[in-house]
Amino acid sequence: MNIQNVLKNSSKFMAKNTEIIVIMNTIIKKTLLFLFTIILISPVFPQKTDSIVIKKIFNEALSNDIAYKNLEYLCKKIGARICGSPQAAAAVEWTKQLLQNMDLDNVYIEELWVHRWDRGEKEYSKMVSNINGTKELNICALGESIGTKVEGINAEVIEVKNFEELKKLGKKKIKGKIVFFNRPMDPTLYNTFEAYGGAADQRVHGASEAAKYGAIGVIVRSLTTNIDEFPHTGIMFYTAGVEKIPAVGVCTKDAELLSIWLKSDPKLKLFIKTNCMFFPEVKSGNVVGEIKGVQYPNEFITVGGHIDSWDLGEGAHDDGVGCIQSIEVLRLFKSLDIKPKHTIRVVIFMDEEIAQKGGTKHKELVELKNEKIIAAIESDGGGFLPIGFSIDANEEKIAKLNEWIKLFENYGMYQIFVGWGGVDIEPLKELNIPLFGLVTNSQRYFDYQHSANDTFEKVNKREMQLGSGAMAALVYLIDQNGL
Amino acid sequence: MNIQNVLKNSSKFMAKNTEIIVIMNTIIKKTLLFLFTIILISPVFPQKTDSIVIKKIFNEALSNDIAYKNLEYLCKKIGARICGSPQAAAAVEWTKQLLQNMDLDNVYIEELWVHRWDRGEKEYSKMVSNINGTKELNICALGESIGTKVEGINAEVIEVKNFEELKKLGKKKIKGKIVFFNRPMDPTLYNTFEAYGGAADQRVHGASEAAKYGAIGVIVRSLTTNIDEFPHTGIMFYTAGVEKIPAVGVCTKDAELLSIWLKSDPKLKLFIKTNCMFFPEVKSGNVVGEIKGVQYPNEFITVGGHIDSWDLGEGAHDDGVGCIQSIEVLRLFKSLDIKPKHTIRVVIFMDEEIAQKGGTKHKELVELKNEKIIAAIESDGGGFLPIGFSIDANEEKIAKLNEWIKLFENYGMYQIFVGWGGVDIEPLKELNIPLFGLVTNSQRYFDYQHSANDTFEKVNKREMQLGSGAMAALVYLIDQNGL
Repeated sequence: MNIQNVLKNSSKFMAKNTEIIVIMNTIIKKTLLFLFTIILISPVFPQKTDSIVIKKIFNEALSNDIAYKNLEYLCKKIGARICGSPQAAAAVEWTKQLLQNMDLDNVYIEELWVHRWDRGEKEYSKMVSNINGTKELNICALGESIGTKVEGINAEVIEVKNFEELKKLGKKKIKGKIVFFNRPMDPTLYNTFEAYGGAADQRVHGASEAAKYGAIGVIVRSLTTNIDEFPHTGIMFYTAGVEKIPAVGVCTKDAELLSIWLKSDPKLKLFIKTNCMFFPEVKSGNVVGEIKGVQYPNEFITVGGHIDSWDLGEGAHDDGVGCIQSIEVLRLFKSLDIKPKHTIRVVIFMDEEIAQKGGTKHKELVELKNEKIIAAIESDGGGFLPIGFSIDANEEKIAKLNEWIKLFENYGMYQIFVGWGGVDIEPLKELNIPLFGLVTNSQRYFDYQHSANDTFEKVNKREMQLGSGAMAALVYLIDQNGL
Repeated sequence: MNIQNVLKNSSKFMAKNTEIIVIMNTIIKKTLLFLFTIILISPVFPQKTDSIVIKKIFNEALSNDIAYKNLEYLCKKIGARICGSPQAAAAVEWTKQLLQNMDLDNVYIEELWVHRWDRGEKEYSKMVSNINGTKELNICALGESIGTKVEGINAEVIEVKNFEELKKLGKKKIKGKIVFFNRPMDPTLYNTFEAYGGAADQRVHGASEAAKYGAIGVIVRSLTTNIDEFPHTGIMFYTAGVEKIPAVGVCTKDAELLSIWLKSDPKLKLFIKTNCMFFPEVKSGNVVGEIKGVQYPNEFITVGGHIDSWDLGEGAHDDGVGCIQSIEVLRLFKSLDIKPKHTIRVVIFMDEEIAQKGGTKHKELVELKNEKIIAAIESDGGGFLPIGFSIDANEEKIAKLNEWIKLFENYGMYQIFVGWGGVDIEPLKELNIPLFGLVTNSQRYFDYQHSANDTFEKVNKREMQLGSGAMAALVYLIDQNGL
């Protein structure tokens, strides 16, 4: 796009930004005008001062690069930080120091114990076909999978799309083989999390399902709609009482190729060697920081993300961004000198990816201390363009969010999704605490998630900053207007 | 984000995608329900069949990688294609062949003549300070700037933020110096095009404004909100009657450093050498392809983008994507066997970046042939997440778009921007033709625009595909329902 006509038409061009046409025809518009007049005089409608403060919050979020530089430090100087690892410990220490340097009223650790799984030496896999030759495959062990023995596994492969097919094939055709789960994420679903939800069973339960029929290992198509060379990891579980077999993810490009080779040579052999190790549990923790409320110091609004990541990449989108944005919420309050009525608490959760022990521990402590939490907000959808909020709360609170969302339209946020908050705050639901999530554009999330491609460079500064602004603005609205 | 709780809460999680809460409170909702009932029986409201076809269009756009592979070819095998260059000629030929292989009813070239400017050998610049030392700067000549003489220019630097400051400083302080324009884009503006519009005067008119006061060259801060090492080019103009002086862009990182050095050493010298060349005009063309309408073959709906780019990078977002999306619109119609009532025409415009000769020539030919164009739609905002459409047309047509936009909410598109179509289709406005533009998330656009960073890898497949789907769906609605 060129500047000439932009300058020529500058007044019009500017107009296109401000004159967002409300999506309704003239009749509706007039009717709404009438209705809005009524609402404006009702006490629940957000005040004009709210929109002024929200603008200040976004302006500061978009003007200051501290959060972005913090993310760079976390990704580049600490890097991947699977729970229980030395890097996870470093991340806890760094986060604590960061919060301590922010002149907060309270910074502490919620101690807990976590699993310690390590993939060990890099995995190796190749397919060997008498017809097509030999080809190395890009694989990675799935999280908490056992490794192969030192000599690896070497067997014929049987490709399936789902567990039904396994059942149809039965023991006779599966026994002694490696099962290849190759059902792609459905590309036609706009929300990629929905497509992920529709394909992830292969990764999570594929090994035990295949082992029931005598498989000796599974290789699972990576969960991304891209065709590329990044294998994606992620948690998998073994069903109790079923033999444990090794499970790996394979990049989509190699999954496509393996499928093609199998068509011309069903007898090809696949070799897989993985080196996974399990260690004793490790002491770790959630990091908590607080700005004390001036009016209700014992009532809390919580924001958070999770600091642990998978061991590939740098855990940038998943979920370095969410932690940094949550910390930024507190910095925004302080730098704009907004004195919250309620205590604003940031919780940097540990162990979202493996066993959610951070979320569970936090909930136990809230319960033990009998704390009143007004709301908990999580960011764990990646540092992409914010498009709205999710909410898991009663109708009355949903109605409030429906009013507030209008204040976010200038920032491109129109959508409310009902029935979800976030993995780390989910346990708080048991205590009847309203949950919120920052919802971002999901199109690019699975380009990165759980792979070596989830690096700092893939985060756009402004998109991340808009997310911080949105979270801080929501905290502000809850703090000022109640929920 | 982890899958465990997603699976656990899968029904709810799915719900969050489908149950988009309309942004209005209960009273409004009920009133609207009544109003919608009225509208539903009125003939202008889009039929249910429209939404079914739109879903088919998006499904096909999201499932098929042909367009993405076409973009890869354009970017990687042809690359940067500034107008008049051999690569621009190659791009025209490639586009023509691509259209010819699509079994269209008509493919032809609209011939025209374009400028031919070339930056020649790579530019060189360094700052030399007795206090701070010597540092090379990342610069690039601005488009259509003259070069320095072979010995380069070497002079003291004076930093300004705008033309007012130039005036205040006057000839006495500027004569013989290099003027450094260092006003950043305003990061607080949500729409980055607005921030661009507020800073681009420095690049476009800075040289002549500075020359009026005797400057011997200008160096302009690149137009991006990032702090990085990519200098951005873009068109600049010389004011008639003012001496022409060389103009370069400098990457933001070096702009920041130059500013810091100037504070401690206002006497530092800046050396700049550029090697720009001007050639005689070159014959080139717009490429046009058509699917004939079954009912109104002599009435046209036009879609397009521009095939020329700047000479840095690969012209991926600006505007390889727009061309490929426009071509994809025709492929979608053909592959879904939608027989349009009106003729669907794709125009791959030449020379958007320099002198807009493609847009002008196309308009002349439409006028000459006295063609009836129902609507023209351009994509030139980059291959990012679509968020809505712009429109430059009368109230009645805006009202129609206001109805149609509801059909795009499932695809995250809520917004309508009034008063703009696109640079290439802008001349058609004189003929009273309604103009539309695909509007996409603008946050990342200026990370890439006019720089070596605008490469294929920066385009997300799904975001680009959603844009193709949105354009095809809009064409379909106009074709079926009239405008």
